[in-house]
Amino acid sequence: MVYRFTVDSTMHTQMIDITDKVREIVSESGVLDGLCTIFIPHTTAAVTINENADPDVKTDFMKEINKIVPWEDNYRHFEGNSAAHLKASMMGFSETVIIENGRLLLGRWQDIYFLEYDGARTRTVIVKVSAC
Amino acid sequence: MVYRFTVDSTMHTQMIDITDKVREIVSESGVLDGLCTIFIPHTTAAVTINENADPDVKTDFMKEINKIVPWEDNYRHFEGNSAAHLKASMMGFSETVIIENGRLLLGRWQDIYFLEYDGARTRTVIVKVSAC
Amino acid sequence: MVYRFTVDSTMHTQMIDITDKVREIVSESGVLDGLCTIFIPHTTAAVTINENADPDVKTDFMKEINKIVPWEDNYRHFEGNSAAHLKASMMGFSETVIIENGRLLLGRWQDIYFLEYDGARTRTVIVKVSAC
Repeated sequence: MVYRFTVDSTMHTQMIDITDKVREIVSESGVLDGLCTIFIPHTTAAVTINENADPDVKTDFMKEINKIVPWEDNYRHFEGNSAAHLKASMMGFSETVIIENGRLLLGRWQDIYFLEYDGARTRTVIVKVSAC
Repeated sequence: MVYRFTVDSTMHTQMIDITDKVREIVSESGVLDGLCTIFIPHTTAAVTINENADPDVKTDFMKEINKIVPWEDNYRHFEGNSAAHLKASMMGFSETVIIENGRLLLGRWQDIYFLEYDGARTRTVIVKVSAC
Repeated sequence: MVYRFTVDSTMHTQMIDITDKVREIVSESGVLDGLCTIFIPHTTAAVTINENADPDVKTDFMKEINKIVPWEDNYRHFEGNSAAHLKASMMGFSETVIIENGRLLLGRWQDIYFLEYDGARTRTVIVKVSAC
């Protein structure tokens, strides 16, 4: 009951909707009641939930977090992507969504987003569906 | 084993203790050992854990996060609540608490809080109790 | 299937790798497929995942979050550690890692970190291994 899929980010920071893919996995699992865990096995990318309607929310969201954690700030890490490491931890590497009657219990305005903070790259998303 | 209850926020940003309600649900479920998942099906409200003693912690907490993510910052989103969307993701939409011998394994100073970032409104909290 | 261990922080803010300890617990549990929940029963300490290679990432990570949430900012809380409370909630008190074939599904560069924001102290970490 562990599924993996890849996400190809095309920008340095990007918010990519993965809800359809996660819904497909839950459906394929056949689990009617339980938990769906979405896990990001990276250190400069994360997962969150947010609005699925106005695309301006994504623009504002990424612009503002990039402002709060500036890309340049005399970081010591030789790769120069310390801001991406911190932003990923602030957002989190796992998200738990409840499954009821075979459906993800997302709110009306909620979608699940992969958050890229140091792209563009091919990334992996791991999804576990638990019948519990 | 999926429970729902509503929270009525009375302020624009507010930290509301929901621990008693979650404890009641765990008790009602009859589950002795497992996981309790608290999920917020909104995009401008969140859930966290924090101190249950000095109420000044709540005041400082909300004041400081509101300062870090300012309400006005030339956001594009037409509803004007982009700050609420970002703060909700920074705090998170789900919290997992371990259940042992029928009790939530919260620390002595920990309570569970619903976080309102764009109230006042009636909101829903979903709780799943898993015997696993 | 609930395990506890202690962490002795030696600095006021500190990022301590607890991956080996969590791996040991998963191995001891005998669970081959399921979920591992790491829970911090405190209000000024948290848990996250991040890079395990260059130690400068840890330095940058803690320095930058300490800058974003300053220690002094006219807080009202009499203990004076409101910044620690907020940082802990921003990072989160629980982390869920998927277990497959008896192994934690961490990415190549990922380790699990205990985050101290108001040390030095002896702290507790709770780990639950669920076969689900």
